[in-house]
Amino acid sequence: MVCGLKVLISNDDSYLSPGLYILYESVKDLYEVLIISTQYPKSATGREITFNKPLRLYKTKYLGYEVFVTDGSPIDALHLAVNVLGFKPDLLLSGVNVGENLSLQHIFYSGTVGLAIEAALMGIPAIAISADVYEFSDFNDPLIKNLISGFLRGLLINVEKLGFPEGVDVLTINIPRADVYRNCYKVTKAARLRWRARYRVDRDVRERLCYWLQGDPRLSEADTDVYIFENEKCVTITPITVDLNAKPETLRQVERLVGYSGR
Amino acid sequence: MVCGLKVLISNDDSYLSPGLYILYESVKDLYEVLIISTQYPKSATGREITFNKPLRLYKTKYLGYEVFVTDGSPIDALHLAVNVLGFKPDLLLSGVNVGENLSLQHIFYSGTVGLAIEAALMGIPAIAISADVYEFSDFNDPLIKNLISGFLRGLLINVEKLGFPEGVDVLTINIPRADVYRNCYKVTKAARLRWRARYRVDRDVRERLCYWLQGDPRLSEADTDVYIFENEKCVTITPITVDLNAKPETLRQVERLVGYSGR
Repeated sequence: MVCGLKVLISNDDSYLSPGLYILYESVKDLYEVLIISTQYPKSATGREITFNKPLRLYKTKYLGYEVFVTDGSPIDALHLAVNVLGFKPDLLLSGVNVGENLSLQHIFYSGTVGLAIEAALMGIPAIAISADVYEFSDFNDPLIKNLISGFLRGLLINVEKLGFPEGVDVLTINIPRADVYRNCYKVTKAARLRWRARYRVDRDVRERLCYWLQGDPRLSEADTDVYIFENEKCVTITPITVDLNAKPETLRQVERLVGYSGR
Repeated sequence: MVCGLKVLISNDDSYLSPGLYILYESVKDLYEVLIISTQYPKSATGREITFNKPLRLYKTKYLGYEVFVTDGSPIDALHLAVNVLGFKPDLLLSGVNVGENLSLQHIFYSGTVGLAIEAALMGIPAIAISADVYEFSDFNDPLIKNLISGFLRGLLINVEKLGFPEGVDVLTINIPRADVYRNCYKVTKAARLRWRARYRVDRDVRERLCYWLQGDPRLSEADTDVYIFENEKCVTITPITVDLNAKPETLRQVERLVGYSGR
């Protein structure tokens, strides 16, 4: 612990994901760190929060690491860490996610980024890290471990010195597969869409119709995270804001739609 | 059907919510309308999407209305409507939700707004409508029906004429309780936070610890949706964008954090 900064590490793939412990190994000598995660994977559940039932929270050991575990969602885990465990982080690290989270479409779906967004709303700077891997065991490759760890440590030293720029709430980072990575980093905006929905129409074992979601990848616009990740094989860094408010000057225009204001 | 516009109506409270049919009754004489919803309520699951199992989709009648139903999420329902039913809407109406969705915090959690955000990403303008009611039967009150219907029809006629202003992807609308409503409408930005998490520590029937999420409401900043809704008892209209990208000028500053760009 060099500077006393408190860093919370969490994810949406559950405490069984080695991605969580890659983050821990990357920063354990730099900061005071707490790891909390979910009992079960919660991918693509976006920003679920549990208010209709009580949650469990316990400490366990996994792969030799101390980790807190809840039966709730990633966002529940964050609130439990802050409010029940009393760990108020200066920074949240979310990930490393199994699978990249490129484009606004995925950023909105993603539990990994959703968690970072919740932290940012609470005033905690957050970094969400996702990797183009397919399963937990892919994280055992030393190449991907070193790639993530090396990149993250360099970034954090500068974040500590300079902070996030004004208007940036979350840094979302995508890590390419180690065997295609071209040793480059690029700061880039997020594309709007990643894919178009298409359904495979099937019949189940009782001959009833069912529909299975497939995605057609879309052509990605130049200079976006999707394009650079797929074509240039760089690590991408995408700064996002959590302020969804449309520009202030649109308020007057919307008043015309409503017909009047403040009647 | 006056102008041939196609309007998709959906929600996150399931096809059993009368809120869905208030929207239908409000616009059925104006547009070509299709109603699709979920089998079960999907509140506070944010932006869930189902890709790991096949989905069901069937047509049924409820309260005399024809409605398509899926066992997936609200976002699944939208994609099924467009891709399986071939209904490509010019506008999505999402709601009427049981419970208001004020502040960025709730906008990010909300299935009602999450659905509107997905439509917006696909290029479909969307309006999300939430009401400060507590249960389905509250929608049977003619006062709330007339309030919603009157407001929405006025708005839609202007939207048809003028379209959404540039940079506005979704209009999120919150409707106060009919008995406190002060007959005013206000266009306003969203507050950042609605509440702070607090947990009630309990023991379950086996004496094990558990934690139940409560929220402490926060003081709301003036001129925000929360403040106006709570203090002035107006309908609030909040225009939002789905473009989470931080301002372009921050990209250079983030490059300093990364240390280099495009190496």
